[in-house]
Amino acid sequence: MTITAAVSGASGYAGGEVLRLLANHPEIEIGAITAHSSAGSRLGELQPHLLSLADRTITETTAENLAGHDVVFLALPHGASAAVAAQLPEDTLVIDAGADHRLEDPEAWFKFYRSEHAGTWPYGLPELMLDGGHRQREKLQGARRIAVPGCYPTSALLALVPGFAAGLLEPQDVVIVSASGTSGAGKSAKPHLLGSEVMGSMSPYGVGGGHRHTPEIEQGLSNSAGESVTISFTPTLAPMSRGILTTATARVKPGVDGATLRAAWSDAYGDEEFIHVLPEGQWPATQMVLGSNNAAIQLAFDEHAGRVIVSSVIDNLTKGTAGGAVQSMNIALGLPEGAGLAQLGVAP
Amino acid sequence: MTITAAVSGASGYAGGEVLRLLANHPEIEIGAITAHSSAGSRLGELQPHLLSLADRTITETTAENLAGHDVVFLALPHGASAAVAAQLPEDTLVIDAGADHRLEDPEAWFKFYRSEHAGTWPYGLPELMLDGGHRQREKLQGARRIAVPGCYPTSALLALVPGFAAGLLEPQDVVIVSASGTSGAGKSAKPHLLGSEVMGSMSPYGVGGGHRHTPEIEQGLSNSAGESVTISFTPTLAPMSRGILTTATARVKPGVDGATLRAAWSDAYGDEEFIHVLPEGQWPATQMVLGSNNAAIQLAFDEHAGRVIVSSVIDNLTKGTAGGAVQSMNIALGLPEGAGLAQLGVAP
Amino acid sequence: MTITAAVSGASGYAGGEVLRLLANHPEIEIGAITAHSSAGSRLGELQPHLLSLADRTITETTAENLAGHDVVFLALPHGASAAVAAQLPEDTLVIDAGADHRLEDPEAWFKFYRSEHAGTWPYGLPELMLDGGHRQREKLQGARRIAVPGCYPTSALLALVPGFAAGLLEPQDVVIVSASGTSGAGKSAKPHLLGSEVMGSMSPYGVGGGHRHTPEIEQGLSNSAGESVTISFTPTLAPMSRGILTTATARVKPGVDGATLRAAWSDAYGDEEFIHVLPEGQWPATQMVLGSNNAAIQLAFDEHAGRVIVSSVIDNLTKGTAGGAVQSMNIALGLPEGAGLAQLGVAP
Amino acid sequence: MTITAAVSGASGYAGGEVLRLLANHPEIEIGAITAHSSAGSRLGELQPHLLSLADRTITETTAENLAGHDVVFLALPHGASAAVAAQLPEDTLVIDAGADHRLEDPEAWFKFYRSEHAGTWPYGLPELMLDGGHRQREKLQGARRIAVPGCYPTSALLALVPGFAAGLLEPQDVVIVSASGTSGAGKSAKPHLLGSEVMGSMSPYGVGGGHRHTPEIEQGLSNSAGESVTISFTPTLAPMSRGILTTATARVKPGVDGATLRAAWSDAYGDEEFIHVLPEGQWPATQMVLGSNNAAIQLAFDEHAGRVIVSSVIDNLTKGTAGGAVQSMNIALGLPEGAGLAQLGVAP
Repeated sequence: MTITAAVSGASGYAGGEVLRLLANHPEIEIGAITAHSSAGSRLGELQPHLLSLADRTITETTAENLAGHDVVFLALPHGASAAVAAQLPEDTLVIDAGADHRLEDPEAWFKFYRSEHAGTWPYGLPELMLDGGHRQREKLQGARRIAVPGCYPTSALLALVPGFAAGLLEPQDVVIVSASGTSGAGKSAKPHLLGSEVMGSMSPYGVGGGHRHTPEIEQGLSNSAGESVTISFTPTLAPMSRGILTTATARVKPGVDGATLRAAWSDAYGDEEFIHVLPEGQWPATQMVLGSNNAAIQLAFDEHAGRVIVSSVIDNLTKGTAGGAVQSMNIALGLPEGAGLAQLGVAP
Repeated sequence: MTITAAVSGASGYAGGEVLRLLANHPEIEIGAITAHSSAGSRLGELQPHLLSLADRTITETTAENLAGHDVVFLALPHGASAAVAAQLPEDTLVIDAGADHRLEDPEAWFKFYRSEHAGTWPYGLPELMLDGGHRQREKLQGARRIAVPGCYPTSALLALVPGFAAGLLEPQDVVIVSASGTSGAGKSAKPHLLGSEVMGSMSPYGVGGGHRHTPEIEQGLSNSAGESVTISFTPTLAPMSRGILTTATARVKPGVDGATLRAAWSDAYGDEEFIHVLPEGQWPATQMVLGSNNAAIQLAFDEHAGRVIVSSVIDNLTKGTAGGAVQSMNIALGLPEGAGLAQLGVAP
Repeated sequence: MTITAAVSGASGYAGGEVLRLLANHPEIEIGAITAHSSAGSRLGELQPHLLSLADRTITETTAENLAGHDVVFLALPHGASAAVAAQLPEDTLVIDAGADHRLEDPEAWFKFYRSEHAGTWPYGLPELMLDGGHRQREKLQGARRIAVPGCYPTSALLALVPGFAAGLLEPQDVVIVSASGTSGAGKSAKPHLLGSEVMGSMSPYGVGGGHRHTPEIEQGLSNSAGESVTISFTPTLAPMSRGILTTATARVKPGVDGATLRAAWSDAYGDEEFIHVLPEGQWPATQMVLGSNNAAIQLAFDEHAGRVIVSSVIDNLTKGTAGGAVQSMNIALGLPEGAGLAQLGVAP
Repeated sequence: MTITAAVSGASGYAGGEVLRLLANHPEIEIGAITAHSSAGSRLGELQPHLLSLADRTITETTAENLAGHDVVFLALPHGASAAVAAQLPEDTLVIDAGADHRLEDPEAWFKFYRSEHAGTWPYGLPELMLDGGHRQREKLQGARRIAVPGCYPTSALLALVPGFAAGLLEPQDVVIVSASGTSGAGKSAKPHLLGSEVMGSMSPYGVGGGHRHTPEIEQGLSNSAGESVTISFTPTLAPMSRGILTTATARVKPGVDGATLRAAWSDAYGDEEFIHVLPEGQWPATQMVLGSNNAAIQLAFDEHAGRVIVSSVIDNLTKGTAGGAVQSMNIALGLPEGAGLAQLGVAP
């Protein structure tokens, strides 16, 4: 039986990537393709790379248009998804690529988004390690509402969770610096995102605790550590379209050595299809994972500073958004977890 | 029954792309992975993006190692493939991604390569239009030796052949200017290909008739036109890893108008899975086809100059090399022509 | 005596580059810095790289604010400069970086701009060769109104004029394909100019005679040739901020050989400070001229096709806009022609 | 009286940038231009952007060729400069752009370079704050041997020194993550530096305390702090030719607030010509300083994490190498400190 999926927010980068992946998915038939201001347009005008879908017409994002599908992907502005989801049947699988349902703490939501919290949905990061050897994957099986993690949190959590879950890292003075491609900032035309401005240039933004992804990263790390973790997070914009490189560093607890650290990361991801701890001495590059659902990770113990340094790379639009969404969909529906997801990046 | 394939030249960009595509191919099992100076290495050291194949060992490129497979891909330096192919059984499908067997004219070969011509194999550009309404595809069915076209010729021929095949264009004063990503220049470390040199910079090379792809393009155009076509071809290096944008322009024969031109291109590619003539007013961009086997094409009639201008884009490593190779393999083996080949580019 | 200069359109890329050059100019004092929607802002907000001018306040672009300076630079939208210039004294040197006063033919203006022609000012390309061995430079000496050429025309004219001025080239079937950095498209935020769209991508635009620079290039070539020259011009957008690479090719008249061609170009630019014909075998790259007022040129005679191919590179914002403007100002005021203009590009 | 300068290592990126700056310097005449393997070549072959110097011949790097100049710039491989310097007169100003004479501690040198320490020369970072309100500038006045800082240390020290000099920061758990353009890795052709590999990709390297710049950064911070400072430093490679963005973060001492932090940085650089603390809310981008000798800095107090985060940008080849060298030369010779150095970056 074919599974039908509707995609809202189809004019943006996240929506476009969901469509790209679904078109390659062996079990999915793409139904409604919706957006707001571009409703009525050919998809080919908005997403010219989706050549085989170019003649599909974009319809308005309404509950009516999204209803009647087995799966509905929401790639909407902040604050918009709860109202749409409420109008969809409870047994429709609704996957929200936006931020609305990620945070568990309504106060943290209000502090960063200045609106009422829409509630918390199961968090779509299957590899996340929880207390007692459990994985987040279990909570997604059979779920009908899923919140896709942010791209920075995906990258940061995959980097650091093995150390916190194994009790090897101090919960203070965790520092995370990430470099993201510009597609993470979306498709709306802002002057500082012009090619002329970003090519050949690196810049930070949202510095000093102000980035909305900070509470989401701290939530995931704290859940894994079983204690409250505080981070300093600085995102930077890199001159590339896709990819996130995260450099994450934390103080190592007394007595922990390099071999113990390496073992923790290897054990954490040894059975994971998409998370690759590289052989010692090989460092990740975002190019390795372009267009794929992979993460590649390397770590080093800096004895001099008493810290572990972990580098992780993902494609922000694939594993960091649409790939994570499709992987979570597969789990929720009982399909093979990797269906429709590329295991090989496009390089060079 | 599973089909086995060996890939030689696996340490380079062409070989790596063949492996990427074959790993996604539903009917193919990857056998020997061979190279020369890197024999004995883990594939992951040379092709870090091929994460799921990282632990495969590269063996030496010898006929012995390549034998016993249904298909053998050769991605070797110029002049090396004939000797290897001669040692492989006649019923093994041998696909040469190099230049050795593309040209029909031994003198043209000698002029540009200064060595003896190795012979001509069926040319792996299925969409090429031949006299009498035939397509090159027919010559590939059941073939056991195939010469993959060069990346520039693929781009230029797809752009101009419809006009020549329909007898609409003058055979003189054809001008072709192509911009290629740097992966077309291969993986050997030359100073002018350093990132520091190419980023933020455009430059021409091989100007003035000296580029080796000139006779290959003229051969294909002449075969389509049924008369000798002469071109001026200038390749340029663009600051991107992948992609070719070809701007091709030719004088239009007297009496030909814009509608006739458009009809010729639309008719030529209307049934082709991978060649997309865009709706009027939409121009191609290399990003549209990244990582896919697609070509996107647009044309305009410049009445003022009496010329048609055609723009085409391909991914030089996919449709321009490895994708064309796999597509030709599919045809030769009677598989669905698009098996294992992405129809959607990775964008943005 | 210090010369004072006002700069309008100071929030855009052309205006910013004029300011960068003037700040380094030994004879100029920067006066009013004006713009429209950003009037009242600190310059540092709009042009963050102009650090030593950051605290200057942008004022409204009015004749009142621009008056009282020795020189006024206009970097305004099409159609706006004539009205401003009319309100400035006749002995003020007004330099228009926009298109309004470049074309000699009011009909050509109307065809491409759909408005009344504002009149023709001396054309600010000093190196342009005119009939009888004259140069455009002579017409700029003492001028008080100057029209700065477009960036594409600067690049194309510098490439081809020596051949037309020497009577070596056929006036038909001239083909020009240029690749420009994105800064040529200006600073207004349009979706197709986002970094995510342009990085890693090449695309054509304004194809088929539709680009507004076509009549300007034909005007310059025809004036040099002494007969009407027709071109096919295709601009493309390259993934870099600055730089234009022009590939220009024309049929060579019967009997002309390679040595004659080379001599024509060498003679044309042997005494020019900013135009460099490279030694045989060395091809230009846009990186060579970044931030400088230089053009670098190479040519080859393609005997096979009977055509000369000329490659030229400039920085579109410097020699192609602001540098050409300052060079013309220097000539008009009797200053050393190269005052304030870098002779060395910033590379790599 | 004209001052003559010789430049060794003229075929590399550092040497090329020294030449670019000296050619614009009002007081300097460029004498010998030397290199090793490219001795005998035209400079234009190796440094095609130095168009006005293209016909100069590169000579062999020998003491004989370098002698007889007032200033000698050494841009040589590690370990080579001491021998050359020993053969030059004591009253010749020798400026070493390499690492040999930067470190004060011979053991630190041996640990990272595995060779005998060549001795310590005055450190060419004029803005560096020392105990008692002194600046490093004082030590450069009249000096005849100067060690130019590494590009990463320049960036990191400018970012953090004001806080340490003012006693506001804890000396442990200092984390520095820097993104550098590829020109920092030099001009030798290595596969991982190919354009195809670096474009569209971010990657870390030298992780875990292994980078040779770590002891140099710790030396500078410790000297400013008056106590031993320990850092975790991770360099990353960004897809751009030039520029370093450093993100540096340190724990703030109890009781220190945001206003105190801001005052420390503002006071530190208020009188500095090339170091710009941006207005609150404006963040630096490497494009702002391209080709200039400027650094731009911003900071934020992250109360949540109890840390200050400082972002700094420089051009690694200008302020980070050749600009710092010329600035130090100016001080040593009693010239205006900014002579020959651009105060405005080339953007966009």
